[in-house]
Amino acid sequence: MNKRVPVITLLTDFGLQDEYVGVMKGVILSINSGVQLVDITHALTRHDVVQAALVLKSTYSYFPTNAIHVIVVDPGVGGKRKVLCCKRGGHFFLAPDNGALSLVIQDGNVDELRAITNEAYFLKPVSHTFHGRDIFAPVAAHLSRGLDMSRLGQEIGLSDVVTLDLPAPFLSPRDALVGKILSIDAFGNLITNIDQETLMRFGPGQRLEDVVIMLGRSKIRGISTSYDSVKTGSPVAVFGSRKLLEIAVNQMDARAYFKAGVGQTITVKLPTVKGGASR
Amino acid sequence: MNKRVPVITLLTDFGLQDEYVGVMKGVILSINSGVQLVDITHALTRHDVVQAALVLKSTYSYFPTNAIHVIVVDPGVGGKRKVLCCKRGGHFFLAPDNGALSLVIQDGNVDELRAITNEAYFLKPVSHTFHGRDIFAPVAAHLSRGLDMSRLGQEIGLSDVVTLDLPAPFLSPRDALVGKILSIDAFGNLITNIDQETLMRFGPGQRLEDVVIMLGRSKIRGISTSYDSVKTGSPVAVFGSRKLLEIAVNQMDARAYFKAGVGQTITVKLPTVKGGASR
Amino acid sequence: MNKRVPVITLLTDFGLQDEYVGVMKGVILSINSGVQLVDITHALTRHDVVQAALVLKSTYSYFPTNAIHVIVVDPGVGGKRKVLCCKRGGHFFLAPDNGALSLVIQDGNVDELRAITNEAYFLKPVSHTFHGRDIFAPVAAHLSRGLDMSRLGQEIGLSDVVTLDLPAPFLSPRDALVGKILSIDAFGNLITNIDQETLMRFGPGQRLEDVVIMLGRSKIRGISTSYDSVKTGSPVAVFGSRKLLEIAVNQMDARAYFKAGVGQTITVKLPTVKGGASR
Repeated sequence: MNKRVPVITLLTDFGLQDEYVGVMKGVILSINSGVQLVDITHALTRHDVVQAALVLKSTYSYFPTNAIHVIVVDPGVGGKRKVLCCKRGGHFFLAPDNGALSLVIQDGNVDELRAITNEAYFLKPVSHTFHGRDIFAPVAAHLSRGLDMSRLGQEIGLSDVVTLDLPAPFLSPRDALVGKILSIDAFGNLITNIDQETLMRFGPGQRLEDVVIMLGRSKIRGISTSYDSVKTGSPVAVFGSRKLLEIAVNQMDARAYFKAGVGQTITVKLPTVKGGASR
Repeated sequence: MNKRVPVITLLTDFGLQDEYVGVMKGVILSINSGVQLVDITHALTRHDVVQAALVLKSTYSYFPTNAIHVIVVDPGVGGKRKVLCCKRGGHFFLAPDNGALSLVIQDGNVDELRAITNEAYFLKPVSHTFHGRDIFAPVAAHLSRGLDMSRLGQEIGLSDVVTLDLPAPFLSPRDALVGKILSIDAFGNLITNIDQETLMRFGPGQRLEDVVIMLGRSKIRGISTSYDSVKTGSPVAVFGSRKLLEIAVNQMDARAYFKAGVGQTITVKLPTVKGGASR
Repeated sequence: MNKRVPVITLLTDFGLQDEYVGVMKGVILSINSGVQLVDITHALTRHDVVQAALVLKSTYSYFPTNAIHVIVVDPGVGGKRKVLCCKRGGHFFLAPDNGALSLVIQDGNVDELRAITNEAYFLKPVSHTFHGRDIFAPVAAHLSRGLDMSRLGQEIGLSDVVTLDLPAPFLSPRDALVGKILSIDAFGNLITNIDQETLMRFGPGQRLEDVVIMLGRSKIRGISTSYDSVKTGSPVAVFGSRKLLEIAVNQMDARAYFKAGVGQTITVKLPTVKGGASR
């Protein structure tokens, strides 16, 4: 029905206190005023590339294809790190080469990957402190006008790109799945690195109501389908909106309740595993 | 002059720290990339349905008709609460059935009210934790493309809907109007449940400069027309931008000045009432 | 390629907790639903006109010409202060007459300057507490539809306008350039009032690596080209994205590191000046 409007998403650690995000949008609109600009979040923990990678992975696929996703978490700005443009599944990604794209490219299904070097698409003079404005914004705007990605710079291989070494869940000698808290959202929900597929692979035939989750000395029995499966103020485990195991407290803050932190270990006891796991 | 662009507003308690608002926008733009997306606020106090209802009431009428207002303050997500679509005065409202629409529908002037059940317009699979993404966003996007609201689900009656029991101001035996602080804005202004119409109904012919406002042991004489009717640092009462009686301190924070909180009683002495109120 | 979409930017101290920014956007979209709305920031320190002026100056030129920049930092709302519309270099500015436009108009290169008085373009009744909604938003929207600025009110002279008296850097008797910290961004970077041009005017032929910057008892040798010219956790001086001298600490917060505050003095020792400055 409607004509497709190009979409550019912005994911940064700039915060909203300063004018930096607004300036990036000004540069974009000066090149293409007809674009849809969407803020994913600008409240990433400063320089936290891992968080950027996690947020990007759980976000981008909800956008229309041809969306251009700009990630500027860039502690190395002005230094020697490359600036990447990646195409995958019809989505474009612009990010510094510091691991922010790790989770998008880790399975190797990348259509095109380039190091951006063609200054014809930069805002000049290029500063050493704000490539969000001088490189990422104008390149994204030109892509949104249909610029062919091959104009941006040389193709590079996946092995030339910085990747993050994120912790994966593993099976302990005591037949429990051991994971970690990857991040904590603004509701205080504890988001782990355990997805349902992994849990089922380690404990096939597992009934979700039978598993027991250990966090410190606390124990949660069963994985529920919604936060309010338990009464207000009670802890609950669910597969959350990122499809990862989350520990929450119904209508309260699980971070405070459990005094939990990112990186903390979480253990999932799988009754079916003991002597019964088929693979 | 310009062609009308459809507008979708978003009012949530998601905060801007996480990607949740961005994900909702991605879902909307995947269905209708040509929509105007407006954030009302995402900083509602977590699960505070009363605040959502107040903000919605003082906001929606400033938007063009046919705007679609999406309210996601949803402690019961994934449980049994209904999801509502309401049409009133040319505006559309999507909200969980938890009272968030109370102030929009309380006068009974509703054109159409339905419980949304038609999964054809949902993002599938529908999660138990994030209906903002899976139900509210796609339904809003389809409405913005002209979907007839009757396709969403069965019509329901006003009496089938959860409503909030908000405190109303009343006249005390001592001829004073007794109200409450309903909310406190980011400036620290104390916003009460007393509107000018109510004040005039209780004290007809009342001159605004003659009323005396009591907050705890503090006294403010007269209702002024602007914050800077008094000198910097002095308390002042005005009918604020929500048309409700506000207690402010010129260029300062009234919450801190009065050590005030939501729910606190405020009393307005009406000189004309004593022996003189005609109704 | 694309048709030009009109742009309105918003710069306020309203915060994002309340619905005030959303309401302004509603008013704008009711008049022109086809506009690009961009938030510069709404987190200016409450009533801080100096900060508004600084942010505006370092922002507006990145936007396309014909952009309409709305600045609502307005402690005098409802009082006697004028509301200004200024045109300069193809950009439009709407702001209260309190100095917020100081840095845009200080060089006198203003194309047109008017006091807005024509109520035909206001939202009525005009409140005494929220001119952002009642005056700034509708006037901006009408301008975005092509309204001729001359319709808004009488032309006024630059001398009729409130201007801020911002501190300028000066040369001390000891041949050092003395400046001040003007603002601190969300990264904790200390932004001074010393730009590169001024530094070179006071110390022509100066090599940036030879200057010595004093902040309290701390000393930084040389002005670098990027934050990561030094190792993580070390202080560094750069000309930042606002083209002003910034003191940063690589990947850390310089405000905390130096216990620094706005208004604090910073001294730049210029080796070439002693007996060698040619002008």
